[in-house]
Amino acid sequence: MKIDREAPIGVFDSGVGGLTVAREIMRNLPSEKIVYFGDTARVPYGSKSKETIIRYSRQIIRFLQQQQVKAIVVACNTASAFALDAVRDEFDIPIIGVIEPGAKVAAAQTRNKRVGIIGTVGTVGSGIHAEYLKHLDPEITVFGKACPLFVPLVEEGWLHDPVTDEVAARYLKELQDKQVDTLILGCTHYPLLRSTIRKIMGDGVCLVNPAYETALELGRLLEEKGLAGEGTEKNEFPYRFYVSDLADEFKAFANSILPYDVEMTKKIDIEKY
Amino acid sequence: MKIDREAPIGVFDSGVGGLTVAREIMRNLPSEKIVYFGDTARVPYGSKSKETIIRYSRQIIRFLQQQQVKAIVVACNTASAFALDAVRDEFDIPIIGVIEPGAKVAAAQTRNKRVGIIGTVGTVGSGIHAEYLKHLDPEITVFGKACPLFVPLVEEGWLHDPVTDEVAARYLKELQDKQVDTLILGCTHYPLLRSTIRKIMGDGVCLVNPAYETALELGRLLEEKGLAGEGTEKNEFPYRFYVSDLADEFKAFANSILPYDVEMTKKIDIEKY
Repeated sequence: MKIDREAPIGVFDSGVGGLTVAREIMRNLPSEKIVYFGDTARVPYGSKSKETIIRYSRQIIRFLQQQQVKAIVVACNTASAFALDAVRDEFDIPIIGVIEPGAKVAAAQTRNKRVGIIGTVGTVGSGIHAEYLKHLDPEITVFGKACPLFVPLVEEGWLHDPVTDEVAARYLKELQDKQVDTLILGCTHYPLLRSTIRKIMGDGVCLVNPAYETALELGRLLEEKGLAGEGTEKNEFPYRFYVSDLADEFKAFANSILPYDVEMTKKIDIEKY
Repeated sequence: MKIDREAPIGVFDSGVGGLTVAREIMRNLPSEKIVYFGDTARVPYGSKSKETIIRYSRQIIRFLQQQQVKAIVVACNTASAFALDAVRDEFDIPIIGVIEPGAKVAAAQTRNKRVGIIGTVGTVGSGIHAEYLKHLDPEITVFGKACPLFVPLVEEGWLHDPVTDEVAARYLKELQDKQVDTLILGCTHYPLLRSTIRKIMGDGVCLVNPAYETALELGRLLEEKGLAGEGTEKNEFPYRFYVSDLADEFKAFANSILPYDVEMTKKIDIEKY
């Protein structure tokens, strides 16, 4: 199959969270088109098993291939942790996740070799960040903390709120006590809580946003493979959005965080793929 | 099909929440056996569409029928709101939900005809409680409030906690201002927050626990149809538990809230039904 450099990038997540990754691609690679899929019928992935996440990821990649994408970004930490290795072996298309780019930057930034990682129960429990980081630098010690209330707090819109401050203070206490100097925001919703986390962790701790690092990594990958896009035709809207359920609510959330208005959101039956 | 009065009751929910309903059946109808199904692979239902919830409910009922149950309890408010009418028409087995029993008691208890209902976005948005209550007593005014943080707070185990107090105070303020004298705990997790809700609403407000009312309604239905069980054989464990994902975590939660230890939890592929 000849890959077309003008083809779009496929980006997928369990729901709306991956839009923070799509947003960084839009900002940093403005010549790229995007086909986004949010698995809103089966969200959240964080509490599901590895086997289930691999099955879901396969279905979504088959759907994105039908959309003729030139590369795929797994914009979901849980799916990156559980399914990336499996699907990379199975599909003949460049696939990147959000864990490796974040881990690389964390390994480069830490001075005291103590790195914190926050995310869902699934992501943190997988130990995948520790694995990457140890591989990059065996001297690094990784401290993980699952923060299950962060996603519903973001979706409730309580971004700057005393309740969120208190929940965050409680979750992050452990990592402060461990004196981490670098903290990976290991769930796509968490960059939206960046200022709360910054306030608690202080200016001395480097906050790594894997969404941003993934966009840069994608840019490098496309250049390397001669696949970088050259922009879109005038009047052509470069972003398409698909979901597995409740397209209207997705659109509302998307419009609240993206720099563009979402023109079209289509619901598809992902179980068919 | 001849229905056997010694057959078990089928009880299902999107996950672990329906165990509060199973618990009330165990307490109030000790002669009944139970087959419980928790759809942990596809939880939560609260944010999914009506169409999706009906499809899921159909699959689960087909599974429970294979387990030879004599009646089914839809122990999930969202599924009761969205799917009960549809599945009652399709299946030849008595099916009850958790909404009607709660609404009946609320209508009988209210003196000022102002009833509050709290639940997921899906349950509250469906307006189904208002529909039932208005049908029972057209003078009743219903005030709904979605409380999306309650389920993750319960699952985090923060049942008696200042954060939960503050979140509850904020969610319930609106219903206090409306001077409801009766409040339906319209999500199966919420009875576990009963003491927090009691503290905020005060002793003057009647809290309706649909799990308890549903167990009583089930008892009446079984008597009426000559289907009441006569107890179990000695040494026979009367409760079986099935889930669609992560059976071990389910077992841990079940053991924390049930009066019996869960002996067997089996994972099944619900998409096959």
